[in-house]
Amino acid sequence: MKLYEFNAAPNARRVSMFIAEKGLDIPRVEINLGERAQMSDEYAKVNFFRQIPALELDDGMVLTESSAICLYLERLHPEPCLMGVTPLEQAQILMWDRRMEQTGQMPVADAFRNSSPFFQGRAMSGPDDFEQIPALAERGRIRAERFFERLDGFLADRPFVAGESFSVADITGFVAVDFARVIKLRPGPELVNLTRWYEDIGSRPSAVTTSAR
Amino acid sequence: MKLYEFNAAPNARRVSMFIAEKGLDIPRVEINLGERAQMSDEYAKVNFFRQIPALELDDGMVLTESSAICLYLERLHPEPCLMGVTPLEQAQILMWDRRMEQTGQMPVADAFRNSSPFFQGRAMSGPDDFEQIPALAERGRIRAERFFERLDGFLADRPFVAGESFSVADITGFVAVDFARVIKLRPGPELVNLTRWYEDIGSRPSAVTTSAR
Repeated sequence: MKLYEFNAAPNARRVSMFIAEKGLDIPRVEINLGERAQMSDEYAKVNFFRQIPALELDDGMVLTESSAICLYLERLHPEPCLMGVTPLEQAQILMWDRRMEQTGQMPVADAFRNSSPFFQGRAMSGPDDFEQIPALAERGRIRAERFFERLDGFLADRPFVAGESFSVADITGFVAVDFARVIKLRPGPELVNLTRWYEDIGSRPSAVTTSAR
Repeated sequence: MKLYEFNAAPNARRVSMFIAEKGLDIPRVEINLGERAQMSDEYAKVNFFRQIPALELDDGMVLTESSAICLYLERLHPEPCLMGVTPLEQAQILMWDRRMEQTGQMPVADAFRNSSPFFQGRAMSGPDDFEQIPALAERGRIRAERFFERLDGFLADRPFVAGESFSVADITGFVAVDFARVIKLRPGPELVNLTRWYEDIGSRPSAVTTSAR
């Protein structure tokens, strides 16, 4: 098994944190997105979609999509449980994981990729080149700010995103909040629940060892 | 159990097709998006995010996010299997399901919601109002066209999206392709693999009975 990754990228960090929480040791190959290494012909053979992370299995089969890689590792290594046991737990964690991704990580990515000079002509990850859309950067920033406020509200009555236990939804949510530094957005101290949770998750070894800073 | 849904909406149809494939009978409550019924105070109590579908359980707990609802039903009713059995099958089906959603359904939604007069001031589903972004509609259409071409390629050597068996990834892919009618995009006859698969899935009772047309 071999993981193609680049820790500064939020999807790669989600998988890296997941692996760290599981206590697994999986060999890594860095695909340096800063040098656009994902666009090489060599990497296209690994992942047609030119995205990281990608998990190459021993028979050459490649899994992509962070959630799918995490699910695979969860099923192979059920402990510690990060994706729920009962049908309801599994569904609730997936629901919250998706909310963290869609209302948190994606808006931050929209804001960043549609404004940073580095992404001119490359406003989306993937095989296709797209020009930046400034209005999408603005919308992304507004959505990211609301994500912070709402997540603060959700965390008012529970310790973790999906309830009483740490789960993959905390990883996705933490990575999204931390990633927002690229658009100079940080949780303000008035968001007391979010700040408490962010510091709590951020002090876990899985967060510390995967920090790109 | 009670499903809040509106069949013309692609996420609701994904869950409706899934339920039909499982042979389940779950009472439905229509939330008429054409009349913006999702914005009522009453529905906000069901789903803060004002999206459908939502599955209300007998104890009042509400599950949202199509994938999470499907996972819950899959775990309660494993047959027929739509989300894989082995760790690798489960991960591959999730990977393809996400690709269908992110590279198919979402671009079509971007194109539709950012161009249709009905969605002026409501370019995103969810609790917040956003103005349309014409450039995002254009990008969505280009991405949807590429989705058709690529899906045709993927289907050249296998009968179903994730491999040899029908799965939830076929449901998501079919709903995305069918939904593209709202932007007047149809699979051309030159896309022979896509056309074969689209007609195959479209003839399943689960597709016929959930068609909004």
